[in-house]
Amino acid sequence: MIKIAIDAMGGDFGPEPIIEGVVQALETEKFLPILVGNTEEIRSFLPPYYADKVEIVEASDVISMSDQATDALKRKESSIYKAVELVREKEASAVVSAGHSGATMTLATLRIGRLPHISKPALATLMPSVVSTKTLVLDVGAVTDCTPQNLYEFGAMGEAYAQQILGIASPKVGLLSNGSEDSKGNTLTKAAFKLLQGLKGFVGNVEGRDIFNGNVNVVVCDGFTGNILLKTSEGVVSTIFTLMRQHIRKSLPAKIGALMMKRKVFGNMKKQVDYAEYGGAPLLGINGCAIISHGSSNAKAIKNAIFQAIRYTESDVNKTIEILLSDNK
Amino acid sequence: MIKIAIDAMGGDFGPEPIIEGVVQALETEKFLPILVGNTEEIRSFLPPYYADKVEIVEASDVISMSDQATDALKRKESSIYKAVELVREKEASAVVSAGHSGATMTLATLRIGRLPHISKPALATLMPSVVSTKTLVLDVGAVTDCTPQNLYEFGAMGEAYAQQILGIASPKVGLLSNGSEDSKGNTLTKAAFKLLQGLKGFVGNVEGRDIFNGNVNVVVCDGFTGNILLKTSEGVVSTIFTLMRQHIRKSLPAKIGALMMKRKVFGNMKKQVDYAEYGGAPLLGINGCAIISHGSSNAKAIKNAIFQAIRYTESDVNKTIEILLSDNK
Repeated sequence: MIKIAIDAMGGDFGPEPIIEGVVQALETEKFLPILVGNTEEIRSFLPPYYADKVEIVEASDVISMSDQATDALKRKESSIYKAVELVREKEASAVVSAGHSGATMTLATLRIGRLPHISKPALATLMPSVVSTKTLVLDVGAVTDCTPQNLYEFGAMGEAYAQQILGIASPKVGLLSNGSEDSKGNTLTKAAFKLLQGLKGFVGNVEGRDIFNGNVNVVVCDGFTGNILLKTSEGVVSTIFTLMRQHIRKSLPAKIGALMMKRKVFGNMKKQVDYAEYGGAPLLGINGCAIISHGSSNAKAIKNAIFQAIRYTESDVNKTIEILLSDNK
Repeated sequence: MIKIAIDAMGGDFGPEPIIEGVVQALETEKFLPILVGNTEEIRSFLPPYYADKVEIVEASDVISMSDQATDALKRKESSIYKAVELVREKEASAVVSAGHSGATMTLATLRIGRLPHISKPALATLMPSVVSTKTLVLDVGAVTDCTPQNLYEFGAMGEAYAQQILGIASPKVGLLSNGSEDSKGNTLTKAAFKLLQGLKGFVGNVEGRDIFNGNVNVVVCDGFTGNILLKTSEGVVSTIFTLMRQHIRKSLPAKIGALMMKRKVFGNMKKQVDYAEYGGAPLLGINGCAIISHGSSNAKAIKNAIFQAIRYTESDVNKTIEILLSDNK
């Protein structure tokens, strides 16, 4: 049975939504959750029926969101440290955490270790699009200053993930740039462009809008740009709905109109852009599996992050990454 | 009377919307448009009443969107070259162009020249926000690879523009980063952060979402990131409305609801995000004024770009930039 290590303490709202997510996941999938954290607290949130369906590993410390990621290696009693160690020791095949994402990335990279040929792991996230397939964007925050080689490896990792997890036989990989022409880019992306041409799925430069129109399956960028892109997109979505509410409030027909659109339009759209539907962001390039969830994850987000971890473990993503990169050496 | 040089040929739709925009601008403001391009074509679109209210400067060549910006300096008979020369020769105080933006930026920078203390001019654009004031973002595409000094100068230019054109006495200037903490950033922005601390209005790092929430008046970034941010935002807006239409189409009550929201909600929102309402993007840091409009500008966008050029010319933006930067030397 697949064993998933879960940091029960790290999220913004403590263990409650995390345990609830684990319970929801157990209702549909067979796996063994190893909950890491304060045993007493974990037990208090766990329904009796599930008491013998989980393992608990005691951890007395929690890395909080305001702590430095650089301290993570020293905090050996923290829930995230111990959860990552379970993967390192092969006692679990994946770790899921809604805790300090910098700490989780640091620990996963240094304690679980990188795959051969990978210089830096990348955080990958799925973005909604107007077509039925979603677009994988990486890196969205693991590597702030990238080399061309990093971006090339991100391309290979994205291609592997799209093949093995998203089920796309020949994924299209684009390099995020300030224009789609081959000549566009900054010093970094121009050098990365040349390396990425060695990748089967590489289709050249793409623009911000191509994330959402289904033109490509994978978008490669450095972690600084990717993080800004992610937060800008969230900002635009929330701005549009705020402006909409401001206008609706001022007109009675508009209020009634909005009510008539509530379920079928706004409800369905909310699902399409709700991160809880996706679960979390996989850290690609490590010798195992780590799924990094939003700090404010609810039970549904945790459940979906666990499903992602299970699918990842059952898949050949890591093997495919190795093959893609060793073929091109 | 203020003279504005207008590239009549460069837009995606030829001279028609440009001449129409000039005519609309003449209906409300007193200025002398100098239309640069094919005299015969320009005359054919110009209503007889306006024939003696404009000057025409003949230009036999047009730089098209597919041409290289690097050729711009050699194409001395092109409409944009000749329009920029009018500013260089002080025969006009500003140039407005909906043509090849790279060519316009190159020519404006090299032929009109930079302000003292400015190493690279920046393209600035206003972004909508949920509060009544808009946010100025720069650079959005002039300087792909920036130095910390470039970003510092962008900050000063943004502060000057916000004061003199947006009428904000003490504008807040933020540096776009992958987190709002002082410690966040890549190598470039960490170095720029230190320089920007010398600027009165600098409030530290901001995130993508701060562009839209009114937290700051000016957001500074390199032109590669700014360009991606701009196109990603456009992509998100168009994605949301596409998804909305997809859902509306499937439900009769939603269709009726959408009709009830059409004018008061969607109509007003469209105005808030419509670039035609803004006009164009000023190229800040040159020894004059250049307003760069969308290639697909309609008459309204051209009219508003001309108004921007007039306000810019009447303002003390350039003087304020010089003062801000010489104070801090």
